[in-house]
Parts: sequence; structure tokens; C-alpha cells
Amino acid sequence: MAELLSSIKKPNDVKAIPEEKLPRLAAEIRKEILLTVSKNGGHLASNLGAVELTIALHRFLTFPEDKLIWDVGHQCYTHKLLTGRREAFASLRREGGISGFPKREESECDAFDTGHSSTSLSVAAGMAMARDLKGQKNKVVAVIGDGSLSGGMAYEALNNIGRFGTNVIVVLNDNEMSISKNVGGIANYLGHLRMTQGYLNLKNSVERNLNRTNIGGALAKKIKKTKDSIRQIMIPGDFFEEMGLTYFGPVDGHNVAEITMALQAAAKVRGGVLIHVITRKGKGYSFAEAEPSRFHGVEPFKLATGKVREVSTAPSYTSIFGKTIVDLAMRRPDIVCVTAAMAGGTGLAEFAADYPGRCFDVGIAEEHAVTFAAGMAASGLRPVVCIYSTFLQRAYDQVLHDVCIPKLPVIFAIDRAGIVPNDGETHQGMFDISYLTSMPGMTVLAPSNGEELRHMFAYALTVDGPVAIRYPKGSQDSDYVYETVVSEEKTPVAKGRRKTCDGYAKIITGQCLEILRGEEIAISFLGPMRSTIDSVTGMLEADGIHPTVADARFAAPFDKDWIRGLAGTHRVLVTVEEGVTAGGYGEAVAAWVEEQNLPLRVAVIAAPNAFLAHGSREELIRRCGLHAEAIAARIRGLL
Amino acid sequence: MAELLSSIKKPNDVKAIPEEKLPRLAAEIRKEILLTVSKNGGHLASNLGAVELTIALHRFLTFPEDKLIWDVGHQCYTHKLLTGRREAFASLRREGGISGFPKREESECDAFDTGHSSTSLSVAAGMAMARDLKGQKNKVVAVIGDGSLSGGMAYEALNNIGRFGTNVIVVLNDNEMSISKNVGGIANYLGHLRMTQGYLNLKNSVERNLNRTNIGGALAKKIKKTKDSIRQIMIPGDFFEEMGLTYFGPVDGHNVAEITMALQAAAKVRGGVLIHVITRKGKGYSFAEAEPSRFHGVEPFKLATGKVREVSTAPSYTSIFGKTIVDLAMRRPDIVCVTAAMAGGTGLAEFAADYPGRCFDVGIAEEHAVTFAAGMAASGLRPVVCIYSTFLQRAYDQVLHDVCIPKLPVIFAIDRAGIVPNDGETHQGMFDISYLTSMPGMTVLAPSNGEELRHMFAYALTVDGPVAIRYPKGSQDSDYVYETVVSEEKTPVAKGRRKTCDGYAKIITGQCLEILRGEEIAISFLGPMRSTIDSVTGMLEADGIHPTVADARFAAPFDKDWIRGLAGTHRVLVTVEEGVTAGGYGEAVAAWVEEQNLPLRVAVIAAPNAFLAHGSREELIRRCGLHAEAIAARIRGLL
Repeated sequence: MAELLSSIKKPNDVKAIPEEKLPRLAAEIRKEILLTVSKNGGHLASNLGAVELTIALHRFLTFPEDKLIWDVGHQCYTHKLLTGRREAFASLRREGGISGFPKREESECDAFDTGHSSTSLSVAAGMAMARDLKGQKNKVVAVIGDGSLSGGMAYEALNNIGRFGTNVIVVLNDNEMSISKNVGGIANYLGHLRMTQGYLNLKNSVERNLNRTNIGGALAKKIKKTKDSIRQIMIPGDFFEEMGLTYFGPVDGHNVAEITMALQAAAKVRGGVLIHVITRKGKGYSFAEAEPSRFHGVEPFKLATGKVREVSTAPSYTSIFGKTIVDLAMRRPDIVCVTAAMAGGTGLAEFAADYPGRCFDVGIAEEHAVTFAAGMAASGLRPVVCIYSTFLQRAYDQVLHDVCIPKLPVIFAIDRAGIVPNDGETHQGMFDISYLTSMPGMTVLAPSNGEELRHMFAYALTVDGPVAIRYPKGSQDSDYVYETVVSEEKTPVAKGRRKTCDGYAKIITGQCLEILRGEEIAISFLGPMRSTIDSVTGMLEADGIHPTVADARFAAPFDKDWIRGLAGTHRVLVTVEEGVTAGGYGEAVAAWVEEQNLPLRVAVIAAPNAFLAHGSREELIRRCGLHAEAIAARIRGLL
Repeated sequence: MAELLSSIKKPNDVKAIPEEKLPRLAAEIRKEILLTVSKNGGHLASNLGAVELTIALHRFLTFPEDKLIWDVGHQCYTHKLLTGRREAFASLRREGGISGFPKREESECDAFDTGHSSTSLSVAAGMAMARDLKGQKNKVVAVIGDGSLSGGMAYEALNNIGRFGTNVIVVLNDNEMSISKNVGGIANYLGHLRMTQGYLNLKNSVERNLNRTNIGGALAKKIKKTKDSIRQIMIPGDFFEEMGLTYFGPVDGHNVAEITMALQAAAKVRGGVLIHVITRKGKGYSFAEAEPSRFHGVEPFKLATGKVREVSTAPSYTSIFGKTIVDLAMRRPDIVCVTAAMAGGTGLAEFAADYPGRCFDVGIAEEHAVTFAAGMAASGLRPVVCIYSTFLQRAYDQVLHDVCIPKLPVIFAIDRAGIVPNDGETHQGMFDISYLTSMPGMTVLAPSNGEELRHMFAYALTVDGPVAIRYPKGSQDSDYVYETVVSEEKTPVAKGRRKTCDGYAKIITGQCLEILRGEEIAISFLGPMRSTIDSVTGMLEADGIHPTVADARFAAPFDKDWIRGLAGTHRVLVTVEEGVTAGGYGEAVAAWVEEQNLPLRVAVIAAPNAFLAHGSREELIRRCGLHAEAIAARIRGLL
């Protein structure tokens, strides 16, 4: 039996597949997704859940004229397979391969680049409005998950879609398993009823006729109100109708025919329509259905067992944070944690289990998360906002306006800072140093290993103001852990030529930790790059260059005394960090040295001011010129 | 007759005033507000509308134990008058005087610093949660306007308040005049009905009893649902109940007794309660009632006529932008404008009147505004987002993620950039240079006069990517307008020692405009500070110092060729800008010069890395060290 999927060579080809063969196509797509994701890693559960929905959308829409916007975008694999990217699919998320998210540069069928949550409805509103202004007739559809609807931006957009009355179809992909039981029964029946041709024709024509006169307009409003009121008795969730959208559903999201009927009906309604589709995350792969969270974003795994192929033995920064916060919370009842739908990803599972009353998952709502924490801090608690670097961007103003202006002691535990492998531009954590260090009063720290991370959180609790601690995705390099000290007393700073630091120095505001004392050239690195810098040092030593090396620890305030001490004894200071150059740690140091007119040349080694497409961590490090060979070459060039 | 207001010396004193005298107290407060705002300027209409509401809140709450959070905060004047700040009130918004917004540093009765919209509910949620964790019993009340409710953050907070079930009273201060007609009738009746002691006792006790068993829990839910459904037929706006809050209202916001009854009833309900209060903006001052928008934030005016005391003859940057965009829109049908409830403030009135179909006011929803614009840009339009610098902070991630990553040609017209007089920390536009210049691909421009502003917008339309143009509140210095050229051809760059530039040079990517050619020292200024720099030049000339002077124009990309050209001919480059130092234009220049190891010393003159409290523009300029004397002194010190 010939594979159906291989007959789909280009956009819109799926329309030629006979309806009765669609279940077979869906099965083939699931197989393809499973094969690729089990090899390359990726977002599995959401993609398995959206297969039939995507097929239905592709039979309903015509690409690229019609615009389909995927909220977050990690559920777009079937969309890629149906738009001429089947061959390329094996390269998913790999260096030079296709992205795991929609990209305008990759295909004209990808209407918009997404990655962060809750943006799709605003994009759709903009595209619909542009279409209307240009007198075009194409369809605009946004697909948004139930989780993304908790983001305030989605509400702002719904509010405006309802108000402007432009034709937009919002597909609510509801995969909360607790909701699927609502399918069937009277809700299902009413969903069908409201999608019948007769009802819609009636609704449109009555409104059209009544709106022709002013009196009619008022009457139309009144009729609508009465009708709405009656409907509200029978259909739950009329939230959307209150915002001015027409609500259809719920619809079985694994039944192409049913979804298609809803889409066709929606196309006949004027204004915004919301189709409520119920899907099951992980559909068709038992391990993913059983544990959808574990199979949300997954590393390469074995298909037969669902087990991840390679399990790192070294603890991740995330897990070290998770243990640290539990330890600290035991002694400090004022510690509370706030997360925006990322309790698992930020390592809060244990804290949430141990201290359920002190752990607040506010849903995908980063702005609220930060200001909610600010409110708790103003009431004497010590909130820790656990968040990814890229998502903290969404609360920039809340950090500045609600935390920094009132100088509140909120701690930001910033996971996924710096390079984030495989997900691409939208998920890199390259900007936090730049935007946080320009906020007055914000202390910005980066630990170079897990032990430092622990001490930095203990230190943050002593600071009477906001503190951000940034650390990357990934495991710490266990060869480079500073010796633990039980007491928090300051032990002598490590001096002299050694491979590893033999003491732990207490974290003191604005102080770096000098690890090696050399001459002529000094290297100050920020974050966990000790092994890289040791390699650099080794290479330089081979050339007879003996650098001084320091772990910067503080991006703000940075160690000015140490730098001043270098002037006179050293010629060059090289800063190294994992973030964009513009506005970063190195630039601040360079500008200060320039300002102070110190006899010291500063060279800034950081990522270029550019967005960073997907690739493995090692590849991205090389692309940014942050690997040992590049750093050593750069330093040699300076001497 | 003794003044009642003067008997209120400290918090809670208002409780001692007999109820029948409250209308007199309200009249006295209005008189005080009118006298002060007519002299000092300030937010008038919203404060006149909130007098009775504030009196009622102050009789209901006990300060400072109970927490009252004012959303945005500009309606807090009565609150200040009732909390021991009557004497200080004459100094409102003046240098060293009290702020026009709530400030924790100013009074322990100001529970939280506000300024931006839609934050109060998150703060209240945090404070309520902290109270619960600490086992305290104080009340937490947030007052939010109907406009602020369009901000997504408010929705995120409502969603969480409803879910967590903590006791929070949300007072919705609804002053949309179109809504006031809903007061009275069945809605009013039901509002009263639902607030009666009997109904609430019943509701609480039934739920309490039913929740004791699991079966009861389900039954309670069912009863609630049925009750809700019935109620929805009769009461509009049950949006809030769907989010899990109990809704009371509407209530007459100028009737202290009615508001008090609602508050007392709300205090007896468990979980979140929303009290819908209808007020009239500008209440009690006929000019403000007639034109509430003009009296929102107002300059000093004459009480008898309502006319502003001093009308500037020079055109403001806002008005020049307003004319520019109308001119450009005539020739470019692809131009559309987006604003977040700031059409008036950003100068869009004429554009909105001429091109209503191309002007989108999305309400207070900055995140949506930016991504909505991105959607239009992706569809081939040329959207201009018209926004204040401080409010663009709220859409940091939307600018980065939805505009910069896909390289979309969205133009940001950033008004109120740099120093903003009188409103204080929350309204300064000091961060946009820092955060925008670190976004890859973003062009950041600052015109030095109105003519440059016009040309910069024309230039922005030629750039295939995002462009931000920042300009301050206030009028251009008409002595320093570059000569207009009708053609856009490049005319010779002004050279030689002249007081004013005698030609306009076309704006070319990354090029500054050299105005004076001197020696030894060069000054590069960003934005409208030509007259200041001319004063500086005059002072320096008197000392025999002849600086080269350039209008930087571009903060990103800045003019590297020009700087490289200085090296060798000049010893020092001084940059001057109106923004924080960290991550600004000067720091980028200094870091680059340091990096390039050019034989040129760079001195950065910018605002300190600190938040800037209120004061007049002149005072704030001095406080930041950006006045001519300070700049000249700094330069002399360098030589």
C-alpha cells in the first residue's frame, strides 16, 4: 500500500486525498513525527494531538493565500509535513535543518514566526485588518491552546477582535484532558445545532436586515441580547461571546469531518468566531498519552519504551536550583515561589510537593507573575520568580515598574539563560544581561557552577532589593565545582597558578572571584564557562602567556576595584559572557574603563548582536565564537 | 463654618465625620483639588470623579493595616488629603513636594507605588496571599478604572484571584460616561438585592455546608451554576462571575452610603469580589465634566474659565509628529497608526479624523498593539505604533519577538522619551535607548528638532525593518530648526564655525550630521539639545576651546566612520543623551572605541542609573547633570 504522505509534495495537495483515507494519513503522519522526534528530540505530545486538526485546516484553507497562525508554534509539525517539507523533516531542529517552529523564511505557508505564547490572536487581528484595508478576501485563522489563553495578551486581542468585527477564525485547541469528558451530551448537540446552515443563514440575514435602519440597529442588539441570554443557560463558557465572538463547539479534535464542518460554518459568520476543539495531547502514542508533560518537549528517546536515550549523570542547573530552594525554604518560611506554567521546567516540582501553599503557578501570565510577586514582597515575603530568560522578557516593565522602582526584594531565578539549544531564535536567553543591568538597583548574578548557584541564592536573601540569578539549560561541568564550605564565612580567595580553585569565597556584593593570578592579560568570565576558560588558559600557557583569571559572578554591580587593580599590572582585560554584546556585561566594563581612562585595554567577547537560529549547544557556542579556540585566538590577536 | 477637611489631620480621622456632613466634605475636597491642580497642573478629571469613592473607602478601611492599591494611581489626590498630607498638598508634583502618584516612601498608607496601568489586581493578589500565609486578617482593596481593565495583565490577575479564592475586593471605577445610563433600573435593583445581608448569609452558609462532603461539593457547584444561569438573564456583564469573582453593582459612585453598603457586603463574601462603581469624570467642575479628556492631565489653568494659563507658541514634537503622519499618509495609503488609548497624547487626533479606517486605538493594551502592528506589517502595510516611551516598556517582548525576529517594518513613534516633567519615576522615558539598541536589527533615531523629526519619519518608511524614533514631551526650540529643503536630495553637510546649521543633510543610515568642525574635542549629542550644546560651545569658546559638534541622529547603528575620523584629529569625544547611562548611546560608543583601541578618549554624559522623581523639566535636567554649565564643566575637567 503506497504511503499517502509521500503523495503530498506541495501545499494544498492534501485536498486530493479522499476523505475515507484521512485516518490512514493521520496514522502515517503520527509515525513520521514519532520517528523524527524520537531521533532529534522535539515537541511530541502537542504535535500528536494536532494531527487531525491540521489536516482539517489544510483541507479548509488554501495556501499561501490564506493565513494560518500557530500560537507558540511548537505544534506545527503536521503543518510542515503538509507544506512540502516532508523531505526536510528528518533535519528538524538540527543545525541547518528546518526549525521546530513556524518561520516565514522557511516557507510562505508559515504566516508568522511564533515561539512565545499568546501572540497569535494579535497577529491574526492585524492580518485580518490588513486584508480588509486592501480589499482582499483571504481567510485568517489562529490556532491557540487553552494554556495560551491565560496570557493577558490573548485577552487583549480577543477584546479587539470582538470590537472591530473583522473576520477571524480562532481555533481553541483545548487539550486539557479534564475537559474532554465535556465532549458529547447537550454541549455537543448544541455545537452541531448551531453549525447547521439554517441557523447561520438566519442569524446573518436577520442582523443584516435589522442593521439597515437605526431603530433596527437597536432592535438587533436587543434580539441578540435575548438570544444570548437564552443560550447562556444551555452552553457553558460563554466568556467568548461576551467578548463579541461567535462560539462554536465543543468539537471532537480527532474527527476531521467534524472540525471541517465547524470551519465551514465559521467561514459563513461575519466577525470573529471561536471554534472550541477538544484534542488529546500525545494522541496515538501510549507513553505520551499517559505522561503528556514529560513528552511536551523531549530529548531523543527510544520508541519502544518511551525512555530518553541519553540521561546525563551530572546534575542540571535546574535541578540544583530545585534542591537549593527546598533547602532554603525549610529555614525561611517567608520564601514563596511563583512560576508561570513552568513549575517542571524550572525545577519546582519538589518545592511544590513540599510547600504547596507557598508555590504559585499562575499559568502562562508572566506579567502577573512578577507583579504578584512584587505584592508579596511588599507584604514582607521573599518571593522567588522562577522563569526562563526568554519569558521574563514578557514582564520587562513589571520588573522595572513594580519591582525596581519600589526596590522590592524579589529574587528572579532565571533558567535557560544564554544559549538554548534546538528551539531557535525565540527561545534563546541572550538579552537578560542587557535589559536587567540597565534597571536601577537590580543586582545581576551568574553562577559558574552549581555550588555557586546555591550560595548566590543564599546571598540574594540577604539583599534588600531585587536580585536576578541567571543560569543556563544544561548540566554543570562536575570537574569544576568549588569546594563546599559549610559555614558562610569568607575563606581566602584563591590565588596563584592552579587548575582548580581550592577555596570558596563568600559572595560579597560586587566582588568577583580571582582564580588565577598571572600577568599582562586578565580574563573575566561570567557564568558557567570555567572549563572553556581553563582550555583557553592551557592554550595560552603553551604560548608562554600567563593570564589572570576571574569568575565575574556579578554582571551588576560589577567589580570595579578588581579592574582598577589590573590597571598598571595588566595590559588587557578580556570579558567573556553568554549573551548579546550590546548592553551586556563586557560593554559596561569597557565603557567604564574608557570613562575612567584607565591604562587597560578591554576586549569584549560575547555573542554577536543577532538572533540565533536553532542548533545544538556546541554548534551555537561555535557560531557565537564562544568556544575555547576562538577565545584563545582572539586573545592572541590582542597581544 | 469651620472647614471639615482641616479637621482631618491623620489617617482614619475621616471616620469621625458625621455621615450627613460628607457631602460638605466632598465639596471641600473638590475645592482643594481644583485650587491646587489649577496652580500646579495634574490629573483633574479622574480625581474629581473619585472623591466620594475615596471617602467611602476611607471610612470602610483602617490604615495602614488595610491595603488600598490605586491602579495607575493618578486618582489618589483625595486619598492623600485624607492621610495627613493636606498641608503638603500645595506642593503636589513640585520639586521636593509630594508626588501625584502613590508612593510607599511618602506614606505608609500608600500600599504600593503605581503609575502604569492594570497592575493593581496583581499587587492585590500578592498582598492577599501574603496576608493569608501570615495568618493576618487585613483587608485588601484594589481600585481599577474601566480603561485599565482592557490591559491583559488585569485579566491575568482576575483569572488568578478567582482561582485562588483569596479575599480581595476589586472596585471597578467605571467612569465611561456612556455607561452611566445603566445606573438605575433592574440592574440597580438587583445590585441592591444581592447586597442585602440575607442573600449573602444564605449564599455563604449554603456553600459552606454543601462543601463538607464530596457529593455536597458537586451539588454546590450545580446549584451555583443554575443560580448563575438565571442571574445572567437579568444582569449584564457577568464576565467577572465567569472568572470566579462575585459581582456587585452597579453602584452610584457619588453616593457614599451606597458604596459603603457595597463594601460592607463585599467584606462578608469569601473569595474575590468585584464592586462595579459608576462615577463621572470631572464631577463638580463643569469644564471638566464637559471635556474630561482635556482635563485628564492638565497644565496649570484659570479656574474661572478652564483655560490653560500659558500656551506655548512653539509647536510641540507631538503636534509636529501629528502633522507629519497626516502628510505622509496622504501619499502612502499603506500607512496605518496604532495607539494604546493615547490617540490624543501622541498627536493622532488629525490622523484619526482624516483616516478613521487606518487608525486603530486598541485600548490600554500595549502588548496587543505592537503584535497587532506586526501582523499588519507582515501583510504589507506600514504600521506606526504611537506610544509613550514608558508604556512601550510593557511591550518589550512583543517588539523583540514579534517585530525584530521577523524583521518587520514597524515604525515606533516614541513620544515622551527622555525626561518627562512632574509625573515622576513611573513616567520617565529613560530606558528606551538602552533596551531598543540591544535588539538586533532595530534602528533607533532621535531628532534634534521638528524638521528632523519629519525627515526621520520619511526615512523610516524607506527602511526594510523596525525603526524607533524617540522625541520628548515639550516644544521644539524654534531658534534651532534646520533649514527645510523641499527635495530630499542630500545637501552639503554644514562645516565650519557657525551658530546654526545652514543646510539640511538627508538622513542616511547610521550617519550623524556634523554641525561645527573644531579641534581636540568633539561633542556628539542625541536628540533635541542643540541650544544646550550651543551654550556649551559658547562657554568653551570663551576658554579658547573650539569643539567639533555633531548631531548624532542615530543611536543604533551609530556613526562609526565619523568617530574613526576623529581619532588622530581629536583627543576626546563627549556623548550627550537624555536617558540612563547603562546600555545607552554613549556606553555603546565608549565600548566600541575601547574595543577598537582608537586613540580617542570617550566621556559619556547621560542621566545617572537611577529613577528620577518628579520635578519640572528644567529641574530634572539639572538633577541629571544635563544642563549646559554641567556639561561644560565636565568637558573642561577632561582637558
